[in-house]
Amino acid sequence: MSTAGQVIRCKAAVAWEAGKPLKIEEVEVAPPQKDEVRIKILFTSLCHTDVYFWDAKGQDPLFPRILGHEAGGIVESVGEGVTDLKPGDHVLPIFTGECKDCRHCLSEESNMCDLLRINTARGEMIHDGKSRFSINGKPIYHFLGTSTFSEYTVVHVGQVAKINPEAPLDKVCVLSCGISTGFGATVNVAKPKKGQSVAIFGLGAVGLAAAEGARVSGASRIIGVDLNPNRFEDGSTNLAAIYITKKFGCTEFVNPKDHNKPVQEVIAEMTDGGVDRSVECTGSLPAMISAFECVHDGWGVAVLVGVPNKDDAFKTHPVNFLNERTLKGTFFGNYKPRSDIPAVVEKYMNKELELDKFITHSVPFAEINKAFEYMLRGEGLRCMIRMDA
Amino acid sequence: MSTAGQVIRCKAAVAWEAGKPLKIEEVEVAPPQKDEVRIKILFTSLCHTDVYFWDAKGQDPLFPRILGHEAGGIVESVGEGVTDLKPGDHVLPIFTGECKDCRHCLSEESNMCDLLRINTARGEMIHDGKSRFSINGKPIYHFLGTSTFSEYTVVHVGQVAKINPEAPLDKVCVLSCGISTGFGATVNVAKPKKGQSVAIFGLGAVGLAAAEGARVSGASRIIGVDLNPNRFEDGSTNLAAIYITKKFGCTEFVNPKDHNKPVQEVIAEMTDGGVDRSVECTGSLPAMISAFECVHDGWGVAVLVGVPNKDDAFKTHPVNFLNERTLKGTFFGNYKPRSDIPAVVEKYMNKELELDKFITHSVPFAEINKAFEYMLRGEGLRCMIRMDA
Repeated sequence: MSTAGQVIRCKAAVAWEAGKPLKIEEVEVAPPQKDEVRIKILFTSLCHTDVYFWDAKGQDPLFPRILGHEAGGIVESVGEGVTDLKPGDHVLPIFTGECKDCRHCLSEESNMCDLLRINTARGEMIHDGKSRFSINGKPIYHFLGTSTFSEYTVVHVGQVAKINPEAPLDKVCVLSCGISTGFGATVNVAKPKKGQSVAIFGLGAVGLAAAEGARVSGASRIIGVDLNPNRFEDGSTNLAAIYITKKFGCTEFVNPKDHNKPVQEVIAEMTDGGVDRSVECTGSLPAMISAFECVHDGWGVAVLVGVPNKDDAFKTHPVNFLNERTLKGTFFGNYKPRSDIPAVVEKYMNKELELDKFITHSVPFAEINKAFEYMLRGEGLRCMIRMDA
Repeated sequence: MSTAGQVIRCKAAVAWEAGKPLKIEEVEVAPPQKDEVRIKILFTSLCHTDVYFWDAKGQDPLFPRILGHEAGGIVESVGEGVTDLKPGDHVLPIFTGECKDCRHCLSEESNMCDLLRINTARGEMIHDGKSRFSINGKPIYHFLGTSTFSEYTVVHVGQVAKINPEAPLDKVCVLSCGISTGFGATVNVAKPKKGQSVAIFGLGAVGLAAAEGARVSGASRIIGVDLNPNRFEDGSTNLAAIYITKKFGCTEFVNPKDHNKPVQEVIAEMTDGGVDRSVECTGSLPAMISAFECVHDGWGVAVLVGVPNKDDAFKTHPVNFLNERTLKGTFFGNYKPRSDIPAVVEKYMNKELELDKFITHSVPFAEINKAFEYMLRGEGLRCMIRMDA
C-alpha cells in the first residue's frame, strides 16, 4: 500500500539536548509539500558538522532536533511541483541546494545558491516555516534541510541529487558532504597539474579526500600536514594511521610540532621554495596562514576548506600576494549538488575515485551513539550507520 | 664612427641626495659587458617608483644614482654573448627581467625571474658587481638595472624588450612599467568576462590602465574608487579629472569619503552583492581589504597591484574566502618582459589599447625636475621627458 500523502511513523534518532546521547524515538513524518521530496534513508554517515551542532558550544541551541546530512536513500513520494524525481529514484540528500534559477545557480563558477545555501540556524522547511517531524504533535527541528538520522525524512527537491541506481548507497553516501568537499577542493579549485606538488593541511576525512583529489590529478608529491602524530606512525594501532599510510596518496608527512620554525618554512625548504598547491582542511587560522604562505611564489594556489569557529582574522603580509600567490576558498568543493554530484558518483563507479577506504566503521542505527564516540575519540574516518539493521 | 667598445660621454640626470633636484651632469658610460646592451634613450617618462626612491624616506639611501625606468630607445651596441639584439633595434628597457632559463621563466604562469627579478637595493650590474656610470672615475649607482634618465644606459639583455621599430617610442615607452602593470592586472589576472562589473581602486596611471584593461575586456560597469575628489569632478581644472571623465572607461565613481560606511558595502549595494572583479592600485592596506571584500561571493576575483610601504598585515575574515572569493596579487601585470611586451606594443599599433591619453605632460630633458613637480602635485598622469630636446 502506498504511503504517499500519508503521515509515516518511523524511527529517528532525536537530539533532545546539547551533548547528550541521541535517543531513538518513534516520530511522525508528514508528507512532502510543494517542491519537497520524502526519502527513505538507507545509510547515513556521521560528519564533524553533526557533532558540532549536537555539542552546540557557543551556539544558540536548537533542540529537539534530528541531525544527519551524509546519507543515501530512495524517494518514497514527492510533493506538488516536483517533476525531476519520482518514487524509487536513488538519491543523496545534500546539506546545501541548487534552485537552478538564481544568479549563483546560473553562474558557471558558483554553487552558493541564494535560495537553498546552507543554513545551520534554520530548523524548519522553507515552504511554510514548519517542521515535517513531530512526536505526539510536538515538532522536532530539522537540520541542514536533510535530517538523515531518521528512517524517513523530507528534503527540498533542490537539495536532492539523483544518482545511478546501481551505485552502492552504503559507499556513495559519503559523497553528500565531506568527501566531495575535500576531493572537489583539489580537483575543481586547486587544480594541480600532473607532476605538481600539493600540501594538505589536516588529515581527517576531508583532508584525505583532498589528497585523493591530488592523487587522481597525478600530483608528484602529496605532503600531509597534521598535528596528530598518530596519523603518521606506520604500524600504529590507530586505524586512521593505517589507512593514511597504506591507502591514501600522501607521499610525505610533516608534523608542525616536530619543527622549531613555521611549517611554511619547513615546506619551502622541502620543495625548493614552496608547493605548487595547498589545501587547508582544518579551519584553524594558523593552519590557514601556513597553507597560504607555503605555496610557491609566481604560481602557487592555496585553497581554504576548513571553517573557522572563532571570529578571528586571516592575516598575511600583502607582499605574499603581490609575489603572485593566489588564495581561494571553496564551499562543498565547488560542486553544484544536483548538476555535479551524480558525475562524482560515476567517478566512483568507474573506479577513478576510491571511497571504500574512507569508511572505517559501521554500526546499526540503534547504536548511532557509537558513531559519535568514534568521532570524539578521533578514531577512523567515517562511520556508516545502517538504517535497516 | 662606431662608439661600440668605447666609453661614451653623455648627459645624465643624477640624483645626488634624497629629495634634492636632479642635476644634469656629463657622465661616462662604459661599454656593455657580457649579456649586456648599451641603449641610446630617446624618451623616458616618470613613474611614482622613481619618486619613491628619490625621496628615499625610511630607506637605506643609495646615492648618487641615476633613476628612471620607463623608457624607449635604440640599441647602440651589445656585449659578449648577446645574440637576440643588435645595434639599431628599437627596445624598451624593463625594470624586471626574464632570463628564459629559471623555473619562473619556464613556468607559463610566473614572470618573477629568479635571476633578474626587480631589485631596488642593487646599484650595480650583476655581471661584475660594478657600475657602468661614472663621473671623473667616481661610480654612480644604477637603479632597477635601467637608469633611463641618461642619454645612454647599460642594461642586462634579459631586461630589454625588442619591439616593432615602427612603434612611436614617445608613446609606447609608458608600457615599460605602469601602464602594462595596470592593464595586465586586468586582462591577464582579473580577466573580467564581457558584460561583467569591475571596480578599480586608485585612479592614478596604473589604476586608469587597469580601467583601460576593463574597457578592452568589454566590462559593462567600471567603478572608479579614489579618495581624491579632484579626480571625479567633471569640468575640474585638474588635468587628470578631465582625462578620467572624458577619455577613460570608468562608468561610475565612488569616493569613500562621501560615505559613512565602508566602501565595500557601498559597492555591494550598487551592484546587488558585489562587483565581479576588482583591481587595487593604491598600495593602501584599507583599500586592499575593501577591494577584496567588495567582490561578489561565489565568483568574485580581487587583484592586488599596489605595493604597501608599511610592514602591516592584510586582514580579513576567512569566511570571505570560504564564500568563494579569490584574492590574487600580480607583479608587472603578469607580463614576461621579453616574451610578452612586444605583443602589448602591437595592441597599441592595432588601436586596441589607447596610450596617448596617459601622457599628459612633456618636458625637455633639461627640465626633468618639472616632471617630479607635476607628480608631487598630483597633476596629470605621465610626463614624457624628451632626451634629444
